[in-house]
Amino acid sequence: MDFIEIAKNAKEAGLKISALNVKIKNDALNCIAKSFEEHKQEIFDANKQDLENAKTLVEEGKISNSTYNRLKLDENKMRDMIQGVRDIANLEDPIGKVLLNRELDEGLILQKVSCPIGVLGIIFEARPDVISQISALAIKSSNAVILKGGKESVNTNKKIMEIINSALDKIEDFPKNVIQQVFSHDDISQMLKCDEYINLIIPRGGNKLVKYIKENTNIPVLGHASGICHIFVDESSDIDMASKIVIDAKTQYPSACNAVETLLIHENFQNKDELLASLELSGIKLITNPESWDIEYGDKILSVKTVKSIEEAIKHINKYGSGHTDCIITKDTENAEKFMNEVDSAGVYWNASTRFADGFRYGFGAEVGISTNKTHARGPVGLEGLTIYKYKLTGHGQIVDDYAKGIKHFTHKDLQ
Amino acid sequence: MDFIEIAKNAKEAGLKISALNVKIKNDALNCIAKSFEEHKQEIFDANKQDLENAKTLVEEGKISNSTYNRLKLDENKMRDMIQGVRDIANLEDPIGKVLLNRELDEGLILQKVSCPIGVLGIIFEARPDVISQISALAIKSSNAVILKGGKESVNTNKKIMEIINSALDKIEDFPKNVIQQVFSHDDISQMLKCDEYINLIIPRGGNKLVKYIKENTNIPVLGHASGICHIFVDESSDIDMASKIVIDAKTQYPSACNAVETLLIHENFQNKDELLASLELSGIKLITNPESWDIEYGDKILSVKTVKSIEEAIKHINKYGSGHTDCIITKDTENAEKFMNEVDSAGVYWNASTRFADGFRYGFGAEVGISTNKTHARGPVGLEGLTIYKYKLTGHGQIVDDYAKGIKHFTHKDLQ
Repeated sequence: MDFIEIAKNAKEAGLKISALNVKIKNDALNCIAKSFEEHKQEIFDANKQDLENAKTLVEEGKISNSTYNRLKLDENKMRDMIQGVRDIANLEDPIGKVLLNRELDEGLILQKVSCPIGVLGIIFEARPDVISQISALAIKSSNAVILKGGKESVNTNKKIMEIINSALDKIEDFPKNVIQQVFSHDDISQMLKCDEYINLIIPRGGNKLVKYIKENTNIPVLGHASGICHIFVDESSDIDMASKIVIDAKTQYPSACNAVETLLIHENFQNKDELLASLELSGIKLITNPESWDIEYGDKILSVKTVKSIEEAIKHINKYGSGHTDCIITKDTENAEKFMNEVDSAGVYWNASTRFADGFRYGFGAEVGISTNKTHARGPVGLEGLTIYKYKLTGHGQIVDDYAKGIKHFTHKDLQ
Repeated sequence: MDFIEIAKNAKEAGLKISALNVKIKNDALNCIAKSFEEHKQEIFDANKQDLENAKTLVEEGKISNSTYNRLKLDENKMRDMIQGVRDIANLEDPIGKVLLNRELDEGLILQKVSCPIGVLGIIFEARPDVISQISALAIKSSNAVILKGGKESVNTNKKIMEIINSALDKIEDFPKNVIQQVFSHDDISQMLKCDEYINLIIPRGGNKLVKYIKENTNIPVLGHASGICHIFVDESSDIDMASKIVIDAKTQYPSACNAVETLLIHENFQNKDELLASLELSGIKLITNPESWDIEYGDKILSVKTVKSIEEAIKHINKYGSGHTDCIITKDTENAEKFMNEVDSAGVYWNASTRFADGFRYGFGAEVGISTNKTHARGPVGLEGLTIYKYKLTGHGQIVDDYAKGIKHFTHKDLQ
């Protein structure tokens, strides 16, 4: 089938699932979780095939060890994957929420009601568990989705998709084509051009992939290209707290997008040498003269700069940061507030590790990713980021001319 | 000054105004309103110059009469313009609202707080009063703005901008460069490329302008290219109500984007001939066999189609509509709900004129425009559409490793 047909089918499916009642959606999710349990050996077998192929690629230096690891599904990942789908079934329905209920005039009632976006295009790299997570989020938020995974995980992806769609086939009234997958690289360029049918693109992958996508489509893109997070150790920081937070933010998972990349230290901070020594003791390589101030190391390496003032720190972050997550460590409330107001990032933290920037840790239950956008959704994005709203107006024959002529007048009274 | 300098200045101004207290913003708005009153003769004089030039253009057939009329500022428009600025001063501050207040764990508090988007790029055609409205909305929502108006109103635009910036100069602590204007056509293409500094483009103008902009930028665009609104007269419609609503929706202001363009009539509706006769009596030209079903007439012309069912009506609207505003006239509650759930438009109406789709009529006080986007903001967009949010996390040294190791546990308790 060519891509346009797939996209048209997705749009039609999106319209059909938009009004589906939540019980059917949850039944579908629970059925998917059960099918994963029943067919998990088939998934492992498919994954084994991918791993064998990937092993050769690692040996040939074509993919990295960390890609290989992300590709691998084990019992733990499988359990998380299955539980993730059930967790999403247990979340509140994000669709049909009344966000505004206003009487415009007697008998003329305006409601702003949450509704799905339509069709999501997901482009992701090696991790095959993304399919299950995104499919579950799409179903719960009543969106149709077209997934394009990395070629390294093609067998696993196909098998997971097959199980999902067999499960959905069993659910009465569940529309066809809500979850579709495409496989060729050419499908990506077609997807990016398909603004007639696709409403939102979510890339999950490295900097290069995300940048490429943002530059090559007119469809809104939700995500982040890079995560250049900062910690600013203010004059009045507690040395133990500073050391503990920086070590966590750099070493707990160095390749995460919310790991710290640059440490800014106030020149009057008394324990600078002690702090840096403790970081080195934890295996962090410190670079005081980096090639540039916007490097995302993804490793136990940290750029370090001394600044003269909090203003310089804020300016540095707004200039070189990626608007992801930035932290101040200070005892000074006024400085903390200044930092949190003036740093223009999705997450602004006071005395806490940047690694908290995550949908699960924020209590969203699941996330489609972390956005550094300044529109639609910012920071960790859960189900809410997959919704928009429509205005429903109910009258009994009201016309605008009566209000234009002053015969009738708006009351604009919020109800409830 | 070249465009990049202007854009850099805007970004800096945006960061400065982002934390400005609401009293200063309101003082600035009231000072602008007062300055307009004091200098209105200068504005009229500048407008007169533009009108003289425009008259020649009308005679040469280069601009339309309606463009000429939109260009013209009279006492009424001036009064509305001034009152509009004061109204925006009286609106609630959209910035700093706590949208979520959650304890992640004891002493680890997450707040989701509304904040400005950053820098808005506004591209608009003839209407010079747009400058005042958009500038006021930008100030109230703490965004910086770069405006590019049509060349026909260049003298008026310059004068209004001069008055705005002289007024802002008088306000202590109000940052420079919050409101800037550019004039050359080349500035548009530069603006569209400037995704490093500009966060949102809002075009106000015809279909051609909006389409061009959407196709030529990676910056998010808020607006609508066309307004192909439908009214579906269901089997059980009341003939008087149907006639009254269609006449209002088509004739009250035919060139508005929320005017109806296509009338769909259920084949079992008993009073079809009577309805069509009443429309013709009101001066509406009916076209039962249009060239295509997605024409925006902008005039007292209406495409008319008979449909076999509500399903056909919904399908027609989702296929040919622009997702702006669509209405069902019916006595059947179930059909009304079906229509409002399944029609994928920013506004779905039951027994009310499509002309109600407007920020003022919805009680938003002011609007930047009407959006047919499926992300960020949809329908009439007020101050809220010019905001996004950031997450503020406050702790006392918490690190993720403690939670990963199960030493600590999230409470995820919503506060207040």
